[in-house]
Amino acid sequence: KYGLAEKEDQVGVVTGLAWTSVGGELLSIEALRLPGKGRMKTTGKLGDVMKESIDAASSFVRSISPELGIKPPKFETLDIHVHVPEGATPKDGPSAGIAMVTSIVSVLTGIPVRKDIAMTGEVTLRGNVLPIGGLKEKLLAALRGGIKTVLIPEDNAKDLPEIPDNVKEGLTIIPVSNVREVLKHALVRQPEPVEWDEAAEEAALAARRSESQGAAQTAH
Amino acid sequence: KYGLAEKEDQVGVVTGLAWTSVGGELLSIEALRLPGKGRMKTTGKLGDVMKESIDAASSFVRSISPELGIKPPKFETLDIHVHVPEGATPKDGPSAGIAMVTSIVSVLTGIPVRKDIAMTGEVTLRGNVLPIGGLKEKLLAALRGGIKTVLIPEDNAKDLPEIPDNVKEGLTIIPVSNVREVLKHALVRQPEPVEWDEAAEEAALAARRSESQGAAQTAH
Amino acid sequence: KYGLAEKEDQVGVVTGLAWTSVGGELLSIEALRLPGKGRMKTTGKLGDVMKESIDAASSFVRSISPELGIKPPKFETLDIHVHVPEGATPKDGPSAGIAMVTSIVSVLTGIPVRKDIAMTGEVTLRGNVLPIGGLKEKLLAALRGGIKTVLIPEDNAKDLPEIPDNVKEGLTIIPVSNVREVLKHALVRQPEPVEWDEAAEEAALAARRSESQGAAQTAH
Amino acid sequence: KYGLAEKEDQVGVVTGLAWTSVGGELLSIEALRLPGKGRMKTTGKLGDVMKESIDAASSFVRSISPELGIKPPKFETLDIHVHVPEGATPKDGPSAGIAMVTSIVSVLTGIPVRKDIAMTGEVTLRGNVLPIGGLKEKLLAALRGGIKTVLIPEDNAKDLPEIPDNVKEGLTIIPVSNVREVLKHALVRQPEPVEWDEAAEEAALAARRSESQGAAQTAH
Amino acid sequence: KYGLAEKEDQVGVVTGLAWTSVGGELLSIEALRLPGKGRMKTTGKLGDVMKESIDAASSFVRSISPELGIKPPKFETLDIHVHVPEGATPKDGPSAGIAMVTSIVSVLTGIPVRKDIAMTGEVTLRGNVLPIGGLKEKLLAALRGGIKTVLIPEDNAKDLPEIPDNVKEGLTIIPVSNVREVLKHALVRQPEPVEWDEAAEEAALAARRSESQGAAQTAH
Amino acid sequence: KYGLAEKEDQVGVVTGLAWTSVGGELLSIEALRLPGKGRMKTTGKLGDVMKESIDAASSFVRSISPELGIKPPKFETLDIHVHVPEGATPKDGPSAGIAMVTSIVSVLTGIPVRKDIAMTGEVTLRGNVLPIGGLKEKLLAALRGGIKTVLIPEDNAKDLPEIPDNVKEGLTIIPVSNVREVLKHALVRQPEPVEWDEAAEEAALAARRSESQGAAQTAH
Ligand SMILES: [Ca+2]
Ligand SMILES: [Ca+2]
Ligand SMILES: [Ca+2]
Ligand SMILES: [Ca+2]
Ligand SMILES: [Ca+2]
Ligand SMILES: [Ca+2]
Ligand SMILES: [Ca+2]
Ligand SMILES: [Ca+2]
Ligand SMILES: [Ca+2]
Ligand SMILES: [Ca+2]
Ligand SMILES: [Ca+2]
Ligand SMILES: [Ca+2]
Repeated sequence: KYGLAEKEDQVGVVTGLAWTSVGGELLSIEALRLPGKGRMKTTGKLGDVMKESIDAASSFVRSISPELGIKPPKFETLDIHVHVPEGATPKDGPSAGIAMVTSIVSVLTGIPVRKDIAMTGEVTLRGNVLPIGGLKEKLLAALRGGIKTVLIPEDNAKDLPEIPDNVKEGLTIIPVSNVREVLKHALVRQPEPVEWDEAAEEAALAARRSESQGAAQTAH
Repeated sequence: KYGLAEKEDQVGVVTGLAWTSVGGELLSIEALRLPGKGRMKTTGKLGDVMKESIDAASSFVRSISPELGIKPPKFETLDIHVHVPEGATPKDGPSAGIAMVTSIVSVLTGIPVRKDIAMTGEVTLRGNVLPIGGLKEKLLAALRGGIKTVLIPEDNAKDLPEIPDNVKEGLTIIPVSNVREVLKHALVRQPEPVEWDEAAEEAALAARRSESQGAAQTAH
Repeated sequence: KYGLAEKEDQVGVVTGLAWTSVGGELLSIEALRLPGKGRMKTTGKLGDVMKESIDAASSFVRSISPELGIKPPKFETLDIHVHVPEGATPKDGPSAGIAMVTSIVSVLTGIPVRKDIAMTGEVTLRGNVLPIGGLKEKLLAALRGGIKTVLIPEDNAKDLPEIPDNVKEGLTIIPVSNVREVLKHALVRQPEPVEWDEAAEEAALAARRSESQGAAQTAH
Repeated sequence: KYGLAEKEDQVGVVTGLAWTSVGGELLSIEALRLPGKGRMKTTGKLGDVMKESIDAASSFVRSISPELGIKPPKFETLDIHVHVPEGATPKDGPSAGIAMVTSIVSVLTGIPVRKDIAMTGEVTLRGNVLPIGGLKEKLLAALRGGIKTVLIPEDNAKDLPEIPDNVKEGLTIIPVSNVREVLKHALVRQPEPVEWDEAAEEAALAARRSESQGAAQTAH
Repeated sequence: KYGLAEKEDQVGVVTGLAWTSVGGELLSIEALRLPGKGRMKTTGKLGDVMKESIDAASSFVRSISPELGIKPPKFETLDIHVHVPEGATPKDGPSAGIAMVTSIVSVLTGIPVRKDIAMTGEVTLRGNVLPIGGLKEKLLAALRGGIKTVLIPEDNAKDLPEIPDNVKEGLTIIPVSNVREVLKHALVRQPEPVEWDEAAEEAALAARRSESQGAAQTAH
Repeated sequence: KYGLAEKEDQVGVVTGLAWTSVGGELLSIEALRLPGKGRMKTTGKLGDVMKESIDAASSFVRSISPELGIKPPKFETLDIHVHVPEGATPKDGPSAGIAMVTSIVSVLTGIPVRKDIAMTGEVTLRGNVLPIGGLKEKLLAALRGGIKTVLIPEDNAKDLPEIPDNVKEGLTIIPVSNVREVLKHALVRQPEPVEWDEAAEEAALAARRSESQGAAQTAH
């Protein structure tokens, strides 16, 4: 059922936490990876701030791609589509940033996301996690929805004393300050880094080009 | 006549169900496949939410294309045009999502859609079917229009007790939770999967390129 | 003079019928075919619905192009410009759809349109003709303008009893349900189909490419 | 001085006639031809209707280019910029259509426009001239500005009886129904047609390609 | 300091004159030339009319580029960025046209602009200078800002009698009717023309292509 | 914590100073360099003036790139993403210009920015620093946030007498008039210039092309 935790670990599917005038709500975020040209598509009646948070998430992920086992040229050969159902409900704000990063990393690496985890936090271009609003309402929604673990920004840890005890007992709440911590908790296994030396790759590419050009020039 | 069930099984033509202030209505959805470059065109005075539901439907279909017997590179060689008559009537909302998927799959595979079936349901990027509003009005419109079978979201099954008996007797109502079930009921035959191993294809492509480059480099 | 039937059969010039607050009016639709890249340009202060009806007309025509004697790759080598004078008068609505189809088919095939015919009807992506409003006013305008034959949607035939006798006597009124009937009446001669087997063409293309690649690879 | 007839015959400079709430005015239209890719740029605070009239003028000119001595592929190698000073004054409407055609033909052919001629008339995609408003005010402005000859739409000839005698005596007023008549009067000499057989050109191009491909395939 | 004459002759930096509700003001216009693809970028909160005046300036400069010593294909290899500080102040109107031309010519030729000159005047696509408003306020601002020489449109010379004597004594005021006069006064030296025969260049290019194609075809 | 000085010297991270209705605030500016095609992406709910200031900063940096040790063609192989958290807070104005320049230079050169420096100032296309508003509030925010050194526009030095003594004692305030001074203070080390002779590079490129073309033409 929609509004509950996922039933199995899935690739690209992450549970975010939204805060609306009527309380907190689980936000299902879905990403797909398609053959393409490095484009990002977003759907789900997303506001500009949420779209920009997806842009920032995407650039951050590209910037650390060798850490994730992905060679940078790979990005030019695929498109990513991020969708946030329900399609008729407007959504906005930056607080799904770390969920967006997790979703994108999952589809790129093919590593599933743990089904009983939810998360909230703005992400910066360096992967830092910024604080969010509505912590209490979001935690209540997580508990209601069957979530076991919630990742929150470290800067929101100061708000935990105001959270009811039953919520704190029913959930494992983990403050995080960087997206790398998020990935450690959210992915069912960690990606293996790949070596990528940008300068060396460029030099090798230039050498191959020059060789091939030389061959062409001396053809007879 | 417009507003009635189709007279024959057709490729790319699917009957959706709309819900307006004056009741339910049959919605004829038409897709065409044209030689092209992987573009999607939509017409029929469609609102942004409906356009996004077509985007999501399209990405979902691309993501499962080998299941449908279509090799992914095929998409780069064709455009799809989805039109929803009547052209002067504004239409919006996500509930035609599963009809959009069906229409796109039908034009891609060339398999006709059963003429006496109608359907309603939002689709997610993973092909899950989300609940919709106006179930009673939509079922009444289906009955009035000569439809025999209606696919509805499993999450709307809970609303069936409120539907008048004569409607439930005049229609076969099938709750579905995933688009794969939709296709089983809606297409006159099922597509045959094709094998597609992305990693193997990429390796083969790279090998062909390297061979051809080697040949060029040693030309004399 | 503008507002009257054309003086000679012309390629790409079709008379539509508009319905405004002050009555019906003849609508002159002009199409030109130019060397290009498969683009469609529209001018004449056209509203979004009319522009979409031109899009639908264009896709329909492309989808049946072998029937019209045109091989699909031809479309990538030409642009079509559809203009509706008078340029300062706003125009909208889907009811010029079948006139748009006729105009596009005429410029593509080079076959002139009969000068004393007018037409009204929305077109679907499959070439079906949907009903329109303002039938009486449109027929009066046609009679006034010297038109001899008017094509109307079959679904509007039920409105004919309300049309004054002098109008029905002064005009040949032909109900049509598909654009193929429209073309039979409107073009001065019928196009000759060309054979086009998409799968065979693609296979042949692939074969030529592979041969040429083989030659290049074994060059020495 | 601005607002007067030009002092010499110039390439690409045409005098149109505008009609504003405070009377008629001379409208100087300037076109430039630049190396490029077939693009049209327009400046001078032009409204959408005037921009569309430039689009229509441009397509018409392209469609008759062999008549003007210009082979169609030439268009892909140049851009045209149409500017209407004064840059801060909004301008709109379709009545400068025939002046736009004249300006574009002049820059394409390099043939100057007669300096003492002005013109007004909407143009269709076939080069027909449609009637305009404000004839009296426009003719007064032409007389005031030192213009000798004014081209007007044939459909406006019926308005000439209402024009004051001194205006009709001070100007040579020539009604025209097609742009070809406009060019005869406005250009200082007539362009020489070039032969262009589209089908033959395409066949020749295809032959050259096939030959060159054959050579490549048999290279050894 | 901003709002004063420049301290040295610089490439691409021109002083324009603005007229606001609170009086005249010096307007610093900066252009940069970057490796690129023939694009024009504009920044500085510029209104549409000022952006169009930059477009017109740019097209005019391209049209006379051999006069300036620049071969037309050069334009395809560079971008130009025109910026008007201060970035938060909205600016509009066509009267900076001749300053835009001067700035673009300076960056293209690398010839500095005289530091103690200011200018105002709309430019047409043929390089003619049209009159502007606010002459008195602009001249006062020039005097205040330490400017020595001001170029004004010839059509504004009629307004000079109303200018206070001290202003006319403190400034050298030069009426100009064409941008070529502007460049003579504003650039520290004049560009040397280069020969460019468009028809000959095209023929030579075609010949080179044909030769190279011939070589390829007879390769063995 | 956000709103405080950075904890370490980082590449691409610069502290700007914002001025809002409720006082001054530290503004964290982040840039990333990604493999790409010379595009600039900006996020963080930035207004048009701030986006234009990033454009100007970017063009300035490109124009002096050899000074920074970067050969101009390098720009065509990378994209830059500038993000200003927090994503939900609207930001505008030109006063972050010099911070944008610093951030872009840092990611291009890989040289970190000093963590205890903040800066404010509009930048022109020539790298000049223009004055800003809200100096007092900005300096207070810098002091509060643990900043040690603040770069301000030289034209704002006249406002220093009005700044409270404790602020001036707690901060090193450095007036700057050109971005080159900014970089000297902000980067932990200075970039080493690379030689780049545009004319020579173009000639060499042309020579290589001609040689390679000659080889192809004489192949046998
Ligand atoms: Ca909900
Ligand atoms: Ca931490
Ligand atoms: Ca209806
Ligand atoms: Ca189920
Ligand atoms: Ca009319
Ligand atoms: Ca029928
Ligand atoms: Ca005027
Ligand atoms: Ca005539
Ligand atoms: Ca100022
Ligand atoms: Ca003069
Ligand atoms: Ca804040
Ligand atoms: Ca200084």
